[in-house]
Amino acid sequence: MSLTNASPADAARAAKSASHVLATLSAEARNDALTAIHAGLTAARDEILAANARDLELARQAAADGKLSASLVSRLDLGKTGKWEDMLKGILDVRDLEDPVGRVTLRTKLDDGLELERVTCPIGVLLIIFEARPEVIANIAALAVKSGNAAILKGGKESTESFVAISTAISNALSQTQVPNDAIQLVTTRESIPQLLALDRDIDLVIPRGSNELVRYIKENTKIPVLGHADGLCSIYLTASADAKLAADVVVDAKTSYPAACNSVETLLVQESALTTVFPAVASALAAKGVELRCDAASKAALFPEITNIKDATPEDYNTEFLSLTLAVKTVPDLSAAIAHINTHGSHHTEAILTADQAEAERFMSAVDASGAYWNASTRFADGMRYGFGTEVGISTNKIHSRGPVGLEGLMIYKYKIRGQGHVSAVYGEGEGKKRFKHERLAV
Amino acid sequence: MSLTNASPADAARAAKSASHVLATLSAEARNDALTAIHAGLTAARDEILAANARDLELARQAAADGKLSASLVSRLDLGKTGKWEDMLKGILDVRDLEDPVGRVTLRTKLDDGLELERVTCPIGVLLIIFEARPEVIANIAALAVKSGNAAILKGGKESTESFVAISTAISNALSQTQVPNDAIQLVTTRESIPQLLALDRDIDLVIPRGSNELVRYIKENTKIPVLGHADGLCSIYLTASADAKLAADVVVDAKTSYPAACNSVETLLVQESALTTVFPAVASALAAKGVELRCDAASKAALFPEITNIKDATPEDYNTEFLSLTLAVKTVPDLSAAIAHINTHGSHHTEAILTADQAEAERFMSAVDASGAYWNASTRFADGMRYGFGTEVGISTNKIHSRGPVGLEGLMIYKYKIRGQGHVSAVYGEGEGKKRFKHERLAV
Repeated sequence: MSLTNASPADAARAAKSASHVLATLSAEARNDALTAIHAGLTAARDEILAANARDLELARQAAADGKLSASLVSRLDLGKTGKWEDMLKGILDVRDLEDPVGRVTLRTKLDDGLELERVTCPIGVLLIIFEARPEVIANIAALAVKSGNAAILKGGKESTESFVAISTAISNALSQTQVPNDAIQLVTTRESIPQLLALDRDIDLVIPRGSNELVRYIKENTKIPVLGHADGLCSIYLTASADAKLAADVVVDAKTSYPAACNSVETLLVQESALTTVFPAVASALAAKGVELRCDAASKAALFPEITNIKDATPEDYNTEFLSLTLAVKTVPDLSAAIAHINTHGSHHTEAILTADQAEAERFMSAVDASGAYWNASTRFADGMRYGFGTEVGISTNKIHSRGPVGLEGLMIYKYKIRGQGHVSAVYGEGEGKKRFKHERLAV
Repeated sequence: MSLTNASPADAARAAKSASHVLATLSAEARNDALTAIHAGLTAARDEILAANARDLELARQAAADGKLSASLVSRLDLGKTGKWEDMLKGILDVRDLEDPVGRVTLRTKLDDGLELERVTCPIGVLLIIFEARPEVIANIAALAVKSGNAAILKGGKESTESFVAISTAISNALSQTQVPNDAIQLVTTRESIPQLLALDRDIDLVIPRGSNELVRYIKENTKIPVLGHADGLCSIYLTASADAKLAADVVVDAKTSYPAACNSVETLLVQESALTTVFPAVASALAAKGVELRCDAASKAALFPEITNIKDATPEDYNTEFLSLTLAVKTVPDLSAAIAHINTHGSHHTEAILTADQAEAERFMSAVDASGAYWNASTRFADGMRYGFGTEVGISTNKIHSRGPVGLEGLMIYKYKIRGQGHVSAVYGEGEGKKRFKHERLAV
C-alpha cells in the first residue's frame, strides 16, 4: 500500500498497472500477503491505537462544539472492546475463504483441438470511498488482495491519523510480498473525490460505504459503475392467513432489532381482510416496543381506540426510509396490490410476505422487483455474513452484475480463453464445404 | 409490441410495469409468444417486404444523391437471399434455447426451516438502439420475450417503414398471448434518444447495436449501464517459437476474413527474435492478400526489400482500429513487453498469442486484460454463435456483469429468496445464548 501524494490520475494509472500484476499472482502469493498484513498490523498495534486516540481527541472536541455527531465519534474508536481483535481476525477470515480467482465456469469443445474456457478473474481497479470507521481500511485491503483487485481507498477526514498509521503498517507488510506497492493506495484529500470519479478509463468499479447521501452523491457524479445502494426501503406484506404470533415476531424483529440498518422494514402492507384479525396483535407488539405507526384511515380505524401511538400517514411516508422506530402502514386489498405498491415505492432491496399460503408466497417472491424476496422471515436477514458469504462488500440494489449482499464473488468478472492449434475462423460456416462447430459442453 | 406515441418517460414507465408481469410468466407462456410472433411475421410477409421496398427506394435515392452509403442501403434490404428466412428461423432458434429464467444457482440452509436460494431473473427494461438492419427488431423482440425482459426499441430512420410493418405484425401476434402489450415498444423519433438515455429509474440496461460512434455517443450520454463495445482493437503477439505456416494462417484469417469486424486483428506484435525467422512468412502471406503493413523500423528492416507494401508506422497507428486491410506492426523484446503494450493500447476485446511454448501461452492468457485471450487461434472466434451461445446480444468490453460475446445469460440478473417459518434475526449472533447459522451448502 502506498499513501499517495500523486495526482488522482497518476494514482489511478499506477493502480491499473499494479492490477495487471496482481491479477497474475497465485492464490498462495495473495494469501501470504494477507498473512503479512495481519502480522504487520499486530506488530504496529501501539502506534495505530495512539494515532486513533489523536483522531478521537479531535473528534470529541468537534462533538463538544456540536460539529460532529456522538455516533460518528463512537464509530471512530478502534479501542472499543473487541474492535481491534475483530479487525485482525477479519483479515485471516478473508484469507481462508475459497480462492475466487481462476475458477472455470464453462468449458466447451468448439472443435477438435479447439477449446473454449470461461475463467473468473479480478475486475481491475476498485475505488472505495468510506466514512468514519478506520477498521474498514484493513477489511477492504484484505478483500482487494484476496480477489486480485487493486484498490484506491479514500476515507473520511475524521479518521486520517488512524488511516495513515494503518496504511503505513500495511505498506511495510506488503513490501515483503509479491503484491505490488501501488496495488493498494490511500488518498487522503477530499478534493480528490470528484477527480477520481472522472477516471472511468482506469477505475472499474466504485464501492461507497457510508450514508445514503454519500452513495447518492457518488451515483450522480460518475460514469464508473457503482456497487451499492442509496436507499433501503423494505416492506412486509401481512396477509390474513399469517399466524399472528409469527407475524408479530417477524415484524418486530424487522423494525426494532436495528432500526438504522438498510434492511429494516419501513412499510407494512396489510391485507384488508387481516385488519381486524392478525393486524391488531402485530400493532400491539410494535407499540410495546415504542414503534410509532403512520396509518392510513382503514388501518387506523382497525386499531382505534386500543393503540394510541398512531399518526395519520402522508403520501410521502410510503416513500420514506425512516431509519428509526417509525413504520408506515397501508391497507391493500390483495396480493396484486401489495406487489404493485412495492414495485412502485420500494428501493429493490428486500421485501417479505407473511402468509400460510405457499402459492401466494411463491407468487410474491417471483413478482417483487427486489434483490431479496422472503417468505415468513425477517428482512434483517439480508446480509452477507448471514447469507454465509464470509464477508460483505456491501448490499447492491443494482440490476446488473451483483445484487443483494455482495461477497468476494461480486469483485470478480471472467475472461474467455481459447486454446487452439492454429485454428482459423473462415473454414467454419453453414455453406457447402464448410466445417461445423462441435459445441460439446465439457465438465468444469 | 406497441408503436408508441407516448412520451419517452411514459413509454419507459409502461415498459417497467409490463416487465413486472413478463418476469412472472412461465417458460411455456414466453415460448408460446415466440411461436405467435413467428406465425404473425410469416403471415405478414408481403406487407413487410412492401414496406421494406419503400424504405429501400428512398435509401437508393439518398445514396444516388450521395447522402447515404451503398453499404447501408445493402443492410436495409430484407429481400436479399436468405435474409427473411434467417430472421424467421432466428425466432424459433431463440425459442428453443434453454430457459434462462428461474435457474437456481445457489442454495444454502441457513438454519432449520430457513433456506436461502439464488434464482436467475430478468433484468427489467432494456433499451435497444440500433441502426439500419430491420431484421434486428425481430431478433431483439425474441431475445427480450425469451429472457423475460421488456424492451424499448429505437431503430434508424432509414428503416422506419420496415420497422413499423414488422412491429405491427409482432404487436398483433402478441395481443393473442400472455405477454403484455407494453412489454415491447417501438420508438421512431430520433429526438427521443437523449430523453430515453436520461430515464435511469425505469430503464435498466442500454444495448447499442451499430457503429463505434453510436456506442461512444451512448456511453457518454447516459448513467444507465451500457452493454457493448465502442472499439475492437485486437492484437496478436507472434513469438519466435511459433510455427510459420500456423502463424501465417491465423494472422491472415484474423486480418482478412472480415476486416470490418470488431474481432479482426489491428496490431501485430512481433518478438524481436522472430523478425528474421517466422515473421517474413507471415508478412508475405499478408502481402499476398493485399494487406498494407505499417511497420516500426526494426520490422520494416526485416522485410526489406522483399515486401514493398509497407508504410512507416506512426504512434497513432497503435491506437487505431483500421477496420480495413491495414495492420500495424511493432517489434517487442519479450512477452512482458507484449502484455504491457496490449494492456496500454488495447480495447479489452480479444488478444492472441502464437507460440509453441505452453507456459508462455498460459502467462499471456492470464495477464492480458481482455474479454478474450487466445492461444494459437484467430481472434475472429470471438462471437456468440461461434462460442455456442445460440444467439448474441453483442460483445461487451465492460469490466462488470457480462464480458465478451453476450448471449441470453447476459440479460439476466438474480434475486435471493428466503423461505422461513417466522425466523427472526435477533436470536443469531456470536454471544452467549445466541444461535449460530448452519450455512450448509445444498445441491442446486
